[in-house]
Amino acid sequence: MAFSRRMRPLPLSKLRIVDPFWSRWQRTLVETTLPHEWAQLTTRLENFRRVVAGETGGHVGFVFDDSDVYKWAEACAYALAVQPDKTLRAHLDEAIGLIQKSQRPDGYLDTYVQLEHPDGAWRNMHGVHESYCLGHLIEAAVALSESLGDRRLLDVARRFADNLMATFGPEKELNYGGHEEVELALVRLADHTGETQYREYARWCVEVRGARPSPWEAELRDPAALAIGERMGGRGIFPLDPYNGEYAQDHAPIREHDAVVGHAVRAMYLYIAAADLADGQDDAALETALRRAWDSLVKRRMYVTGGIGPSGDNEGFTQDFDLPNLSAYAETCAAIGLALWGQKMLELTADGEYAETVERALYNGALAGISLSGDRFFYDNPLESRGGHERKPWFSCACCPPNIARMIGNLGSLVAGEGEGAFFVHQYVGFEAETRFGKITLEGDWKGTMTIRVEPKVTGEFALCLRIPEWAEEVETELPGAEEEADFETGYAVFRRVWKAGDTLTVSLNAEPLWFEADPRVRENLGRAALTYGPLVYCLEEKDLGSAPQLFIADTQAPIEPQEDSRLEGVTLLPVEGTLDVETFPDTLYAPLGSGEVRQVTAEFVPYYAWANRGPNAMQVWVRRM
Amino acid sequence: MAFSRRMRPLPLSKLRIVDPFWSRWQRTLVETTLPHEWAQLTTRLENFRRVVAGETGGHVGFVFDDSDVYKWAEACAYALAVQPDKTLRAHLDEAIGLIQKSQRPDGYLDTYVQLEHPDGAWRNMHGVHESYCLGHLIEAAVALSESLGDRRLLDVARRFADNLMATFGPEKELNYGGHEEVELALVRLADHTGETQYREYARWCVEVRGARPSPWEAELRDPAALAIGERMGGRGIFPLDPYNGEYAQDHAPIREHDAVVGHAVRAMYLYIAAADLADGQDDAALETALRRAWDSLVKRRMYVTGGIGPSGDNEGFTQDFDLPNLSAYAETCAAIGLALWGQKMLELTADGEYAETVERALYNGALAGISLSGDRFFYDNPLESRGGHERKPWFSCACCPPNIARMIGNLGSLVAGEGEGAFFVHQYVGFEAETRFGKITLEGDWKGTMTIRVEPKVTGEFALCLRIPEWAEEVETELPGAEEEADFETGYAVFRRVWKAGDTLTVSLNAEPLWFEADPRVRENLGRAALTYGPLVYCLEEKDLGSAPQLFIADTQAPIEPQEDSRLEGVTLLPVEGTLDVETFPDTLYAPLGSGEVRQVTAEFVPYYAWANRGPNAMQVWVRRM
Repeated sequence: MAFSRRMRPLPLSKLRIVDPFWSRWQRTLVETTLPHEWAQLTTRLENFRRVVAGETGGHVGFVFDDSDVYKWAEACAYALAVQPDKTLRAHLDEAIGLIQKSQRPDGYLDTYVQLEHPDGAWRNMHGVHESYCLGHLIEAAVALSESLGDRRLLDVARRFADNLMATFGPEKELNYGGHEEVELALVRLADHTGETQYREYARWCVEVRGARPSPWEAELRDPAALAIGERMGGRGIFPLDPYNGEYAQDHAPIREHDAVVGHAVRAMYLYIAAADLADGQDDAALETALRRAWDSLVKRRMYVTGGIGPSGDNEGFTQDFDLPNLSAYAETCAAIGLALWGQKMLELTADGEYAETVERALYNGALAGISLSGDRFFYDNPLESRGGHERKPWFSCACCPPNIARMIGNLGSLVAGEGEGAFFVHQYVGFEAETRFGKITLEGDWKGTMTIRVEPKVTGEFALCLRIPEWAEEVETELPGAEEEADFETGYAVFRRVWKAGDTLTVSLNAEPLWFEADPRVRENLGRAALTYGPLVYCLEEKDLGSAPQLFIADTQAPIEPQEDSRLEGVTLLPVEGTLDVETFPDTLYAPLGSGEVRQVTAEFVPYYAWANRGPNAMQVWVRRM
Repeated sequence: MAFSRRMRPLPLSKLRIVDPFWSRWQRTLVETTLPHEWAQLTTRLENFRRVVAGETGGHVGFVFDDSDVYKWAEACAYALAVQPDKTLRAHLDEAIGLIQKSQRPDGYLDTYVQLEHPDGAWRNMHGVHESYCLGHLIEAAVALSESLGDRRLLDVARRFADNLMATFGPEKELNYGGHEEVELALVRLADHTGETQYREYARWCVEVRGARPSPWEAELRDPAALAIGERMGGRGIFPLDPYNGEYAQDHAPIREHDAVVGHAVRAMYLYIAAADLADGQDDAALETALRRAWDSLVKRRMYVTGGIGPSGDNEGFTQDFDLPNLSAYAETCAAIGLALWGQKMLELTADGEYAETVERALYNGALAGISLSGDRFFYDNPLESRGGHERKPWFSCACCPPNIARMIGNLGSLVAGEGEGAFFVHQYVGFEAETRFGKITLEGDWKGTMTIRVEPKVTGEFALCLRIPEWAEEVETELPGAEEEADFETGYAVFRRVWKAGDTLTVSLNAEPLWFEADPRVRENLGRAALTYGPLVYCLEEKDLGSAPQLFIADTQAPIEPQEDSRLEGVTLLPVEGTLDVETFPDTLYAPLGSGEVRQVTAEFVPYYAWANRGPNAMQVWVRRM
């Protein structure tokens, strides 16, 4: 079935998260995360202030640092819509003012270029990230307009986009940005404003990328262009003779993609735009390529946590099944990107397979990127630690902290969707929604019995579609006073009926702890198993075991009784029986087999997202098994 | 018991290797390895030719490239003493001539400095490797003199050493070389010539290293000095503020060393000299430090192969028990260095523990560095491969190929030793020796029954000391016509008696395949075992298993019947029963435990030294066990 939009998320103002788990995160966002990030944005804001003051030189940081301010502003838009806060609002206003005043009369806006290379606008597209920053500015502008009705950045963003589109385009010079982002943002801008030229320009950007010769080949041979991007990788990451643009998905036109390659976040952002642009086009070649890339990702290149991009060298992909645990890069932003791409694919197909991956990335690979306190962050998210991995307050390259803030703020967009005659529940997160069909609420969570209440505006027929997760092996639903059975359609139980006010559907997913193994081509996971419970991947930490988790061997046959516990802001512990290699050994490094000792232990596993919240602490997701 | 020399190796002219296994390697040395290396030395020889021609500039390669020529010449000295060869001799003469003619009138000789920085002699001691090259020149000179009676380089080496000693020293400026080597070489020069000033200078070098301030701190702050070493790491590997000289063992005076640190080869070369210098000094602090460093190495920082230095970042040591298999650096030169240090410790203590480690490094970590064909080399020696690791004909940094050639050529020095009233057999390698006690021969090898024949010059008493390896659990010896029992002294069976012509001792070590496990603090080896047979560590290669060896799980309880085989120039195969994770899996990366299949297999293990001789090939030493 061709890609055509089956549903859209509800606007943030129409869906409120009332989930005990996620509401805590959203509260922390306003009370801790966003104020903390504002305090960290100093050098970024200083760059804007220098531009406003008419200075030249003095830009501090990476060429893409403007984007941190934009992403923070976007996250504020979501957060303040849920929970107003005067101080945060004042910070946001200050940022908006700086952004407005920094824009050149011709619409161009990039503090790095304006301060350091005033004549260098759009001269080094492979490296300088201007269009990446523009993309994030657009997203912030749309979010502010949608969520807070604040349209001040919309005009700034539109004029900056127009400046780009006056420079490159179908009838103009051929070029596009090294880090994708503007493509998906322009689609969003078009959707929000109804101005279709932005969508068509995004389509052009996605279509021309990867043709030969690449416009970047000339830039990479041009010392003047390279000088503008001197702070970036340049030739190191884009080899010449022959040119290789894999790092930024400039290796082949999109319809020829057969695997995800290069920098993981870039790849995700490209595919988000491409999926959006495939909507309603009946473009079989594009759809096939997107499904092929998706399969290469989720069937051969994705961690069980939804982390992607195993290598720090390119912040991205390597070979199929190369998924080392200890050295896993698995950037927080990449897991967020995966969730966003999966969500787009879901909206176009209504296939629960995609929601399954969104869930995986959301609850695990992405959420692990932020501390329970809300003010410490992981950039890379290994699946094993020997105790040396800690979240940090900030990074010189600080893409992840505001990105996870955006995700938590905009969580509602992943939870539910409404389409022609259908309302979809993708993720079992408590919410209250004002839908086109009337009020719909979900109470409870995936661990227990949930209640979905429907209060239609007018009595009428529509389908209520509930995702049935793969981990839910015994789903029970009940719709009192109704005999009809649900249909099962591509991962969703579909209750199609005439709904009356007060109709109440109860759902129990009966999640059970479940051991997983990996394809044996993932060499690191041979002889190992990972424990899951509902949407959560679990891990074993030294703090709970009392020994390094690497010493533990799980008895995967033994029953596991989930246990509610107050540690780590409240978690369900999974106590696992097994043995432990005791750290006693003869006074020698190697000894005949049988020299070591083992003892019986019960190991308390905790959710992966909550790891490393109690100081440095060894950890393992894929534990050895008997 | 204080360090005092209990034995010395026999001069090469007095001990001939007649071992079926090792004689093949020595033959290959003359027929393949050394001619091949000569052909690879082109740029190195060209540097000498430029100096001879009086040119300036144009030096090609690393600052230490002269040493490759010296090490090759040293290997030639050993090889030609065993098996004369006209062509090789002519190449050697050419090299000697170039070296002689390159020396400056003042004795200085370093093609890099002479060509590139004619006024820069001894100006950048932490980086430029002049004294390292001098050390290798001395070793070549002594070897040529000892083995071939060719004293042409001896004078060159002595004059170069005198130039160094006129520059730095007790009453002069304080400085010493970044890469140890000259210290051990000067001791060797003193032993050979009887000129004790070289030994005393070596002692000074070893003693002053690690004091504060280090003379290198000033060099590292001096742009002129740094410029001379521009091709080397400089500040990258020697951080300042505070200064950290760990990379080159300049972190503390030798008596304070409590662990091996930094670059592994450098550390070994320092300790070889320090051990030699401790001889007869009754220096408890130095002896304790050497034993402490040794223990830190063999009990916490050594691979089961005798490979050392897990990290490529510093070509050296990291933390205790950090011994990853796949990314193991374990440089060939470092294993050779370990064997040489162990041999020194053995000569000073007559403790078989050291011979045990020499054996481990010799037969495994070092010998794996050269192909069976003799013309391909490993620089790094991982203990696991996914199939991407191949030996190369040469390297831009080519220290390993001539080093392994030296080791094979000079093998006799590791095999046996003679001391006051005692003859020692350290390694069970067939030989014919002219000892101070008369002719002693060893026939056979460690796999079967060996015969040791004694033909004393005059009837007289001496002790014949045979090392009893730890892997030999049931040693049988027989000395026909004698009732006396052997004493067991620190790892040696000692037959002390009046020997008559024709006395014959037979020895059977009854080696059995033996599984080892590692201290559980070596996280990578948890749940794994390594198979050994006599001195050999075994491994499993994809070529023999038909599948990736990582998929194999050994049944370590099943009996193993060693099997002679013609593959790999003749090896004893060890067939191991076990199961294999079959590479069939549902069409998904992760699936509930139980989705995979296993089948029974017999896996044929081969010696580690012989791996990767049949093209790219996955391999594993530490296999999973049931």
